Amino acid sequence: MAKGTIFNRMLAIGVGLIGGSICLAAKKKGLAGHVLGYSRKLETAHEALKLGIVDECIAGPGDSNVRNVDVVVLSIPVRQYKQVLTQFLPSLPPNCLIFDAGSTKSDVAVMLDELEPQFPGLKARFVLAHPIAGGESHGPAAAVANLFEGRNCVLCSLPQTNPAGLKKVENFWAAIGAKLSTMNAMDHDEMFGAVSHLPHLLAFSYVASVLGHPKGAEFMKEGGAGYRDFTRIAASSPEMWADIFQNNSAALLSMLSGFEANIASLRKAIENGDRATLERILAQASEYRSHWKQN
Amino acid sequence: MAKGTIFNRMLAIGVGLIGGSICLAAKKKGLAGHVLGYSRKLETAHEALKLGIVDECIAGPGDSNVRNVDVVVLSIPVRQYKQVLTQFLPSLPPNCLIFDAGSTKSDVAVMLDELEPQFPGLKARFVLAHPIAGGESHGPAAAVANLFEGRNCVLCSLPQTNPAGLKKVENFWAAIGAKLSTMNAMDHDEMFGAVSHLPHLLAFSYVASVLGHPKGAEFMKEGGAGYRDFTRIAASSPEMWADIFQNNSAALLSMLSGFEANIASLRKAIENGDRATLERILAQASEYRSHWKQN
Repeated sequence: MAKGTIFNRMLAIGVGLIGGSICLAAKKKGLAGHVLGYSRKLETAHEALKLGIVDECIAGPGDSNVRNVDVVVLSIPVRQYKQVLTQFLPSLPPNCLIFDAGSTKSDVAVMLDELEPQFPGLKARFVLAHPIAGGESHGPAAAVANLFEGRNCVLCSLPQTNPAGLKKVENFWAAIGAKLSTMNAMDHDEMFGAVSHLPHLLAFSYVASVLGHPKGAEFMKEGGAGYRDFTRIAASSPEMWADIFQNNSAALLSMLSGFEANIASLRKAIENGDRATLERILAQASEYRSHWKQN
Repeated sequence: MAKGTIFNRMLAIGVGLIGGSICLAAKKKGLAGHVLGYSRKLETAHEALKLGIVDECIAGPGDSNVRNVDVVVLSIPVRQYKQVLTQFLPSLPPNCLIFDAGSTKSDVAVMLDELEPQFPGLKARFVLAHPIAGGESHGPAAAVANLFEGRNCVLCSLPQTNPAGLKKVENFWAAIGAKLSTMNAMDHDEMFGAVSHLPHLLAFSYVASVLGHPKGAEFMKEGGAGYRDFTRIAASSPEMWADIFQNNSAALLSMLSGFEANIASLRKAIENGDRATLERILAQASEYRSHWKQN
């Protein structure tokens, strides 16, 4: 193994923006000896090969190359994990590490519980990872080697996680520039339900509700800088975000309840001319947000 | 009157970010022969004088200079209009034009109805204006001559508005770089209730509701680019926005009802695993917002 190499043979399942960027970063930093790529759509895998994201494509779990990979990087919608793992695990070496890059974690932990009896030891070699990177663009063509430089990556280890495997995955993310933090899956989902999933839900819902007004589309043409920034995330992928909302429904809907209670208080204060309550709520938010700085 | 001059003697009531920027722009473009400034806080008026925003300060409606102004620019919180106008109108020449720069318009139209019997002809010489400019900063020190360059300014003429006076105000705003549009006060309030006031209410409420969670402040430290942009407007002035929410409560709460109905549909779809409804609502928003461009 060359100096600095962490994995001999990496298999990327999913080679879009996230998976493709992980491969490019691994190759650029010399962290993986050989990079294999798989996509459910053959043309996506071929595009990744042509772009130099992977060294080789495989057609599926039957490919003999699958038998000697030492790490699998799962960068596909979380709802596809179970089916894809069930297909690939019988062909993968028993000590092969697996890590993902999805936005929800408790649902993946539950899925691993369900697969563990069929694939004993799976939870020991699976590391749950969530790089805080991405955006509106997608596909292999959007992948870049520096996507994770300076960005946070949350690792959620399970009680069963093998420490040596976890260490390798930590070293990998650190080597491609990510700042690491660790928390359990429940805390992760609560935190990102609050600071990412709920804002997305509200932004989608706000735009959809104004579109429901007879003159809504006409009104929105006049939106200024406030409208622009507030609604930017409403342009995100409906499929991806429907997945996230469903997969993290418990934490998301609990945070939504808090928001609904707050908006009900504001409505009541406006209706009753209760200036003190109105200003108190606005001042709390303004005071906090004025001093907020991005990590 | 020098070439290009629109007004001989302008009185700015309020010399903060908006009023101060109007004065600076008027002076830079040679649109006003002499600029007088008034602020309820004497030190603010003196600051404006020192910064070259106004040529002279006046202490109040008793100042003899008030008797020969030909235009008044009202750039103070909308809730103070009635009291300030009641104080100044007896001293102002009967044909003096007045225009404002506030964010709500129907409430000002109602206030003018209330003052009209006491000051006959007031509605004929008052032009309701709303420049779409401003932001988190405030005070005379934040004023700049080019604040309105390329920005929209909505004029809401009343049926009683004197056409010659309206034309002068239009020429003034156009000369300081604003792009003009015209609509009635009700339409204005409905439009800005939808595209500005409701997003501000939701952003304030979102931050306040997360702060209400035991770990909310800790969670928000981890907010990424989506959180940053979605919440930027929650750092705005609580006093100013409490005014706007109260002054435009009818249009705002009506738009809020549409939003609440939409978020209830999304909650139900998530709770029931109704993927089709969930994706349909998200796709509507994403499709619209992906093609939206700022005017």
